[in-house]
Amino acid sequence: MIENPYYTHEFHGDYDLLSIGRLDLEEGGSIPDCQLAVATFGELNEAKDNAILITTWYSGTHQIWRDIYVGAEHALNPDRYFIVCVDQIGSGLSTSPHNADIANAKLAMSKFPHVRIGDDVVAQERLLREHFGIETLQLVVGGSMGAQQTYEWAVRFPDKVKRAAPIAGTAQTTPHDFLFGKALSEAITSDPGFNGGEYSSNADVVDGLKRHAGIWAVVGFSTEFWKQEVWRALEFDSKEAFMAGFLEPYFTTMDPNNLLCMAWKWQRGDVARHTNGDLAAALGKINARTFVMPINEDMFFPVRDCRAEQQRIKGSELRVIDDVLGHLGLFGVAPTYMPQIDEHLGALLNTSV
Amino acid sequence: MIENPYYTHEFHGDYDLLSIGRLDLEEGGSIPDCQLAVATFGELNEAKDNAILITTWYSGTHQIWRDIYVGAEHALNPDRYFIVCVDQIGSGLSTSPHNADIANAKLAMSKFPHVRIGDDVVAQERLLREHFGIETLQLVVGGSMGAQQTYEWAVRFPDKVKRAAPIAGTAQTTPHDFLFGKALSEAITSDPGFNGGEYSSNADVVDGLKRHAGIWAVVGFSTEFWKQEVWRALEFDSKEAFMAGFLEPYFTTMDPNNLLCMAWKWQRGDVARHTNGDLAAALGKINARTFVMPINEDMFFPVRDCRAEQQRIKGSELRVIDDVLGHLGLFGVAPTYMPQIDEHLGALLNTSV
Repeated sequence: MIENPYYTHEFHGDYDLLSIGRLDLEEGGSIPDCQLAVATFGELNEAKDNAILITTWYSGTHQIWRDIYVGAEHALNPDRYFIVCVDQIGSGLSTSPHNADIANAKLAMSKFPHVRIGDDVVAQERLLREHFGIETLQLVVGGSMGAQQTYEWAVRFPDKVKRAAPIAGTAQTTPHDFLFGKALSEAITSDPGFNGGEYSSNADVVDGLKRHAGIWAVVGFSTEFWKQEVWRALEFDSKEAFMAGFLEPYFTTMDPNNLLCMAWKWQRGDVARHTNGDLAAALGKINARTFVMPINEDMFFPVRDCRAEQQRIKGSELRVIDDVLGHLGLFGVAPTYMPQIDEHLGALLNTSV
Repeated sequence: MIENPYYTHEFHGDYDLLSIGRLDLEEGGSIPDCQLAVATFGELNEAKDNAILITTWYSGTHQIWRDIYVGAEHALNPDRYFIVCVDQIGSGLSTSPHNADIANAKLAMSKFPHVRIGDDVVAQERLLREHFGIETLQLVVGGSMGAQQTYEWAVRFPDKVKRAAPIAGTAQTTPHDFLFGKALSEAITSDPGFNGGEYSSNADVVDGLKRHAGIWAVVGFSTEFWKQEVWRALEFDSKEAFMAGFLEPYFTTMDPNNLLCMAWKWQRGDVARHTNGDLAAALGKINARTFVMPINEDMFFPVRDCRAEQQRIKGSELRVIDDVLGHLGLFGVAPTYMPQIDEHLGALLNTSV
């Protein structure tokens, strides 16, 4: 186990580590003691039918959902719903390469197995059922890799998901996304300090993590984000200061193997694994009332890719988010972002199903 | 001087190396014996008023213009025009980091000075005037960094350029482009084999050059290029085979310092250097009849950036090229590409000015 202060309660506030026992993995092997970091908001009602599941994105945790998306003033309202946010495997809070303890010692660091989106969803379903007695969800919502998990939920457990809101993500990773994930991963693994995954601290890989941030800068934001100098809203006075003060430290605090675990998973998200590669058939299995919510300036989950999937989901709607930040609009920086999210999620939650 | 078989007549066919003598550089210092690689097509008429100048892009040379763009069946018709293609400084054919000979020995490899777009244009103007006696140009045309040079020509020498056709490029590099160039450069310089620019062969930097190709894959083509598997038109049967058989060898044959020289120049292209940072004033100096020709799927020279500049050029037109390849549509792979180029350049050349 590597000590990393970022993956602690000090940085991440309240959450519980809940074991779901052994998790057998799609790619083979298993996690002997799979622990999921879980943050909850609100109260589960007696009927246990007021639950919402939030899934997390690459490098993200429950923290940003708690701070930006969840609250009495939002559609994700803990006064009405029992909201469960589960940090993905590899996130650094749930079982991850850097935090393998005694039970998972054989999975530490470079030895961590490949995990798929489906593994996360199986783990989350078991957690909700066994720990909370939740059998149905009013809504599954997530952004980016969280959208991948949302789609996976809706396809894999069509009778458990009443509503689905995949934001800025796809049900089947595109080849462009695969290549983007590859470029990001190679920025990390090419750092001599990475040492095949057997570094002693994320600080050993700081150069690679900074280059990784540099590639995010090009593809994660939009061209207009940079042109309009939107980073000024975050009180930086140059793009260089924004990189050095925001995007680079955002990633350099994280564990390289954790990021690689998530990237591998992201690159291979594909609900068509349930239907022998037939994407239309997989999306046809969805019973959830689904709002597909791409961001108009997203450079790697463009609206057209999301629309192509949406058109194959019965009763679904395309709800495009207008945000100059592009994909990383998910951070909720623009004051116009959350009102749109709340409008769409509110409308979705008010739809009777 | 590093031996590199790519930068030879065997690979590049006929061209002349013409010295323009000492070139003093905008950033300070000078190239004692600046040699420009020049390929010409057609005949200069007696009045010396039928010349067209082609400028080259990052990593590109006259080769692709000769093979794809120039010919009796094209608007760039050597039966009508004297067409001069000048390889940019740092291209590997003109004076470049890897080929410093005796006169330029102090500029070899990591010691090569920073060169700006304006330096290239000053060098080209001197070449055309002193070697060919050319004082006016019917057209300056170039793509990407070639568009930067085209704009620089039209702003710096407004009375020498009758027509200008910047394809898939801008007059002022955007911050997004700057960051893209940075990510590309860092993929190279981070390779331990780069050794601060003092490698013994480009093969020492093959890993960095492949990562550099991997970033080009994400930003240089469009998301739809990958989704539609357009690489099949080049007779590859997987995206991995296309990367290994096309995009990686395209870059790994090149010299790392040469690419870095061009990237630095690209990142800082800016005609507003002539007008104390006032871009509108700089573009207002253009007298050339100008067709601004962005590619609709370009991810880093998006149409809106090109349109914003076009709207500040008097009498100009926006002529958008439809090409699913995105920026690297410049390679002319799509059968629908050259007909559009020829239509627009033909119309431009037929405009009386």
